[in-house]
Amino acid sequence: MNQTTLYDTPLPLSGERFSAWYRIAAGSLEEARAAARALSVEQTIEFPAELTTGRIAGEVVARVEGLEAAGPGVFEARLSFAVELVGGELTQLLNVLFGNSSLLPNVRLLRVGLSERLAARFPGPRFGIQGLRRRLGVQSGPLLSTALKPLGLTPKALAAMARRLAEGGIHLIKDDHGLADQAFAPFEARLEAVVRALEGTGAIYAPNVTAPGEATLRRARLARAAGAGAVMVAPGLVGFDRMERLAREIGLPVLSHPAFLGGFVPKGAGGVAPYALFGQLQRLAGADAVIFPHQGGRFAFSRQDCAAINAGLKEPFSGLPPAFPAPGGGMRIERVNEIRALYGEDLIFLIGGDLHRQEGDLTAAARRFWAAVRGSG
Amino acid sequence: MNQTTLYDTPLPLSGERFSAWYRIAAGSLEEARAAARALSVEQTIEFPAELTTGRIAGEVVARVEGLEAAGPGVFEARLSFAVELVGGELTQLLNVLFGNSSLLPNVRLLRVGLSERLAARFPGPRFGIQGLRRRLGVQSGPLLSTALKPLGLTPKALAAMARRLAEGGIHLIKDDHGLADQAFAPFEARLEAVVRALEGTGAIYAPNVTAPGEATLRRARLARAAGAGAVMVAPGLVGFDRMERLAREIGLPVLSHPAFLGGFVPKGAGGVAPYALFGQLQRLAGADAVIFPHQGGRFAFSRQDCAAINAGLKEPFSGLPPAFPAPGGGMRIERVNEIRALYGEDLIFLIGGDLHRQEGDLTAAARRFWAAVRGSG
Repeated sequence: MNQTTLYDTPLPLSGERFSAWYRIAAGSLEEARAAARALSVEQTIEFPAELTTGRIAGEVVARVEGLEAAGPGVFEARLSFAVELVGGELTQLLNVLFGNSSLLPNVRLLRVGLSERLAARFPGPRFGIQGLRRRLGVQSGPLLSTALKPLGLTPKALAAMARRLAEGGIHLIKDDHGLADQAFAPFEARLEAVVRALEGTGAIYAPNVTAPGEATLRRARLARAAGAGAVMVAPGLVGFDRMERLAREIGLPVLSHPAFLGGFVPKGAGGVAPYALFGQLQRLAGADAVIFPHQGGRFAFSRQDCAAINAGLKEPFSGLPPAFPAPGGGMRIERVNEIRALYGEDLIFLIGGDLHRQEGDLTAAARRFWAAVRGSG
Repeated sequence: MNQTTLYDTPLPLSGERFSAWYRIAAGSLEEARAAARALSVEQTIEFPAELTTGRIAGEVVARVEGLEAAGPGVFEARLSFAVELVGGELTQLLNVLFGNSSLLPNVRLLRVGLSERLAARFPGPRFGIQGLRRRLGVQSGPLLSTALKPLGLTPKALAAMARRLAEGGIHLIKDDHGLADQAFAPFEARLEAVVRALEGTGAIYAPNVTAPGEATLRRARLARAAGAGAVMVAPGLVGFDRMERLAREIGLPVLSHPAFLGGFVPKGAGGVAPYALFGQLQRLAGADAVIFPHQGGRFAFSRQDCAAINAGLKEPFSGLPPAFPAPGGGMRIERVNEIRALYGEDLIFLIGGDLHRQEGDLTAAARRFWAAVRGSG
């Protein structure tokens, strides 16, 4: 080949770098080293490294900063990236972290370490645990949340349900994630009816603003104007960057829903570790509370996964505020103690169908849940 | 419980239903039947089915229309859904198809069958295979595409590279998906420089418009105004609905990139089958050409996966135009015959690093590729 020396240019690089940790499945340390090097190319230049020179070869290509065995057949690699590769955009940050490598069967994104400029560019949750507590006037202990459902109810029926739930002590009442803008419960009619029904109760409503294109932001603005206390969005459906926009522009707490995000849940040796997927990446994109399936419900999350999510939401992360875990997916009143023991004080119990299965009316059922939660721990 | 009969309301349902096929891993037909029923609830009401009555029980809950064994330990189920659940929104269509079930380890979305109203609401690719051919003036045979890379080059260097590639006969020149709006190659400067460099060559440029929030559409409008012939976007990063907006609003062919979409690639018994993930869902969201890793490159796609993608892009699908497969990821000139044999005439060869590894300059290397492609089949 005689195209050498083509591939370098004077580059405005500051030297600032950020890190990501990956788990690599490989048969030997040598194989893992080759895979880590391939990954460093895949996530940056995606180009024959031997044809690059100068700063592209030395600084644009990711650097393998460390590699060690982490168990039988698995290795952990730390890669560092020039902060300029991101250009200040969340979409490109995710692309650098796990764009093409999401397609690799043997690579898992474990966690992220921001640099100073990235942390300043992505300030994370606007409310976080403390801000959401202030908004709800509940300074300590777990919070209680539930969803308006089933799909098919009218705004009037949903509003009546919301009122009964709030009177039973539920703090945060969200839409079922299947409620969008269907003819049987149009977004605006539902918003108005539920907000009005909750007046004077102290409970806040998080309507689902997951929607195509600008409708997400438009509905969130309507929610704010109507007096909703929060919004819910599914970043798997609309992109993490649209959730980040909600956090930046709307001024309401943001509740993240896991719909269509399950592809990234580790299966085999790929995917994104729960610590990063439901913890760090959500905080990066501004979620104040994150819904995910608790262990032992209908989904296949382990207790260890849930502990990792809790840690990813609360451990120090470049100064980003911590966010609430909101485990759901088949929660039952009998499990309150066990759940609180796992997540600690800063926890939103997300109770769904089991509330409706209880004896008595919804208010009484919610009160029993709340009594169980207060008495737990 | 005494809350029965609460959960029904008069519903504006037309009776029109659409279908989705799922593969369910289960130990027996009975177990599979229970899983299919659970899936029908999970994807719709996510609520105790026994508490619903009337039209919610009979029409809002998905119906299991068929279930049969499909191999050892796997079953195939067809579910049907009331079209009104979607409310005409792509985000909610994806949510109904695979929102919560993306989190289930034993369920795979295999394919989708639209109903008449859905097909009218989501018209799919605006150009498709025929429209993109017209735009390029190439009425038959495979097309040739490559990416501007590596990351770190200036707009001037990228533009010079584009010119050399176009002179070698490359039809479609796209950005590397790592090119966003970085200081070393800002979007607008890159766009202007590359479009100018391609003038008079017949090649078209597809800048990467993957970006946060409204910047995607803003950059696409800039691309159209500057004279770019297409745009590229990664729906895994920005959501399928933002790609759909590009298809509807921009009036340029849309090239879909798989970055950050790999979570859905089947691992274990979950995920979305390649037929649906890189075929049907992409057409639903308006992609005219779809990039994915060809078998035998750096990624773990099988020959069968690639054939399924090709079928998902071209088979009749409720009147939606077919779209081009654009296999990439480690393509080499020696593989041209084999690749053409798999995909047929309607195919975009996406050649990356190997072009730069060839003897001679880029123009000569591109010409050799083009000669090999023309001579293939």
